Amino acid sequence: MSKINIIGSGLVGSLLSIYLVKKGHTVTIYERRPDMRKNRISAGRSINLALSDRGWKGLEGVGIADEIRKVALPMSGRMIHSIDGNIGYQPYGKEGQAINSVSRGGLNCVLMDLAEKNGVKIIFNSRCAHVDLNNASMTMEDGETKKTTNVEADFIIGTDGAYSAARLQMQLTSDRFQYAQSYLPHGYKELTIPPVNNDFALDPKGLHIWPRGTYMLIALPNLDKSFTCTLFFPFEGENSFKALDSIDKARSFFEKMFGDALKMMPDFDQEYSNNPVSSLVTVKCFPWHVKNKLLLMGDAAHAIVPFYGQGMNCGFEDCVVFNKLMEEMGTDWEAIFEKFEQLRKPDGDAIADLAVANFVEMRDKVGHADFLLQKKIEASFSAKHPDKWIPLYTMVTYSPHIRYSEALHEGNRQEKIMNKVMALPGIDQKWDSKEVEEMILNLL
Amino acid sequence: MSKINIIGSGLVGSLLSIYLVKKGHTVTIYERRPDMRKNRISAGRSINLALSDRGWKGLEGVGIADEIRKVALPMSGRMIHSIDGNIGYQPYGKEGQAINSVSRGGLNCVLMDLAEKNGVKIIFNSRCAHVDLNNASMTMEDGETKKTTNVEADFIIGTDGAYSAARLQMQLTSDRFQYAQSYLPHGYKELTIPPVNNDFALDPKGLHIWPRGTYMLIALPNLDKSFTCTLFFPFEGENSFKALDSIDKARSFFEKMFGDALKMMPDFDQEYSNNPVSSLVTVKCFPWHVKNKLLLMGDAAHAIVPFYGQGMNCGFEDCVVFNKLMEEMGTDWEAIFEKFEQLRKPDGDAIADLAVANFVEMRDKVGHADFLLQKKIEASFSAKHPDKWIPLYTMVTYSPHIRYSEALHEGNRQEKIMNKVMALPGIDQKWDSKEVEEMILNLL
Repeated sequence: MSKINIIGSGLVGSLLSIYLVKKGHTVTIYERRPDMRKNRISAGRSINLALSDRGWKGLEGVGIADEIRKVALPMSGRMIHSIDGNIGYQPYGKEGQAINSVSRGGLNCVLMDLAEKNGVKIIFNSRCAHVDLNNASMTMEDGETKKTTNVEADFIIGTDGAYSAARLQMQLTSDRFQYAQSYLPHGYKELTIPPVNNDFALDPKGLHIWPRGTYMLIALPNLDKSFTCTLFFPFEGENSFKALDSIDKARSFFEKMFGDALKMMPDFDQEYSNNPVSSLVTVKCFPWHVKNKLLLMGDAAHAIVPFYGQGMNCGFEDCVVFNKLMEEMGTDWEAIFEKFEQLRKPDGDAIADLAVANFVEMRDKVGHADFLLQKKIEASFSAKHPDKWIPLYTMVTYSPHIRYSEALHEGNRQEKIMNKVMALPGIDQKWDSKEVEEMILNLL
Repeated sequence: MSKINIIGSGLVGSLLSIYLVKKGHTVTIYERRPDMRKNRISAGRSINLALSDRGWKGLEGVGIADEIRKVALPMSGRMIHSIDGNIGYQPYGKEGQAINSVSRGGLNCVLMDLAEKNGVKIIFNSRCAHVDLNNASMTMEDGETKKTTNVEADFIIGTDGAYSAARLQMQLTSDRFQYAQSYLPHGYKELTIPPVNNDFALDPKGLHIWPRGTYMLIALPNLDKSFTCTLFFPFEGENSFKALDSIDKARSFFEKMFGDALKMMPDFDQEYSNNPVSSLVTVKCFPWHVKNKLLLMGDAAHAIVPFYGQGMNCGFEDCVVFNKLMEEMGTDWEAIFEKFEQLRKPDGDAIADLAVANFVEMRDKVGHADFLLQKKIEASFSAKHPDKWIPLYTMVTYSPHIRYSEALHEGNRQEKIMNKVMALPGIDQKWDSKEVEEMILNLL
């Protein structure tokens, strides 16, 4: 059995540690921040997440899916808020399918509790200052005393997120390390819609979107019946965080563009002024491992933007795939690391690209009639021929047996077909006809 | 007048320093390596370079083009070595046009001498350990004593190459720094063809290429009548540095693939065993500056692969553009830095992509009859209509008034036209006909 050090007790590090101890290994997690269970603080990231089938699979593997299900809020579709205040509903899949709003902090605490219960040791306030890739030793710095200590293990797993210290060490010392960090021109700021009369101010069964072309506001429900709203907005330009440089300008912009939402935000002025603007990064790198000494997983290996709601789900799927490899290959770690990156790199790249593309869908396309028509045609055809057509969103979100890379490939093929279908004269009249069905069958 | 610290006394840093002192500024260069003029060592990079018109323009601006011309060896075309030993000549441009083989070390020494003569101070063995982007101060570490000192300036220019310390500081501390380092699967190793009977063993008027599809050998002449050969070869795979893991295997591979070259390499065994395999990186990043405190130039801002022979030429063009901006904008440094990156970023990206694409041309296409035919058609049409068609290679290499980004754009347009022309039935017969000329005129 092996001695394993994990960097980062976030969602992926905590879940992974449980899979590892259950195989009999000795696991210590080093976490830069204080214990969030003692002093509930935001980890600097969004406070709720959309858990879907790949994520559930990861939680089922350690037996806590049912516990989490009790505190998750299912959202079965998008609620699209037009500029005139109308709300349209677009289901995310079939009857009974939903994504689930869960609290990042709450889920993380449950996972850390379970990890410790299973024998994982978590050391907080411990920053990874250096990794020696030759012998899997690390220099850890205590957050308060700044004292450094050296820690040893058979190997290290870096689940330390988009700004991974482990990955930086690979960039600085590994030959031919492929690396790209790319930022969107948009940032995001969180705002709150509190409960009204002790109830949700909006329907909690949907993910609310105010699509406005080049930017958008979204809202996800919380257990306390509030909604967390996120404004995705350009950093610079005509309509931008930079341009809205006073609370008056921000308020008058919201009045014009998100009027119904603003009415439900009593703390708007204070929140808009005080809440930070965070950036949106995609990280791609390769390789993900150094011999049998270090492996990157989760955001450290493949940080993605949030627009497909798949960051955590993808990281949890990493854990499932890794666990399966341990079952097949035991403790042949170098072989496991190699196989892992070979399997997961194409999927990490695919979901990264899908997530960037979905931003355009969420902030722009969902507000257009032709997009809705296309989705209707796809859903109708898929219902008639479920063996021939699974909509892309369903493949990504509800079909963990389909790899992200396969979903992307199939989605591209579908899009080409639908471009032809949508170009049919009178398609808005005959969209549910035998002719259209035959056309798709012929194009498949 | 300003106090400017430059990191790196390579080709671009040295040339730039001369432009700066000539404008009256005080310039100090900090160089990590020892003074190469005292102890001639390889700077870890290829020992000869192809100087062309953009580079000449940079040298002319400080008045040393004529001095360098005396020690440059003009190469007017490619000499293609077939596997059967035949040699074919492909001119690089029109009569009188040539690229020039110059010694990297020799040119660098001339530039450092001239910089010092003009009042630039160069401090050797001084490694940049840290840059404070807020106040343009740096911590320098002495290469021998390891003692660190703090140095101050009005601003810093980082010309410290593909692995720039200045750029790393931006990656670590600047928000939303776009950054990508991507490696080719090929590496390179240098070998030597010494003089025979005190003369060149091959025609020195050409750049010799042994194109072999997925890899190639090239040779450039030196002043001492030797040739420096470079093998560009995959790191891994069937034919690769990894596969040729003994000198016997390497020798027998060269006998088969580069028979005529091997016969001219008396030191092959020793050189192949001892010379390192270097990697080939492209670096793209943005922005290139931090306020009025730091600017990246040359490889630090846009490291490219060597297959268009434009790395140094592009860096020297950076200096020419920067000098022009100083003439237009004086010492409004922040505005100059912004304008510089705005002008040069598209050109850096363009030559980076052109350089990667030209690898395929050099190692594969130049050995095929249809490629030669296409170049002949382009040259013929260009001779008849010089105002309508400048071949891509000529735009990049001999036309410094055309920006790289324009050359790339125009080259893509030309390629689309030529694809149609080359698809004409019987094109190999009627390539010089009125019909083909009319066809191109219509497609333009």
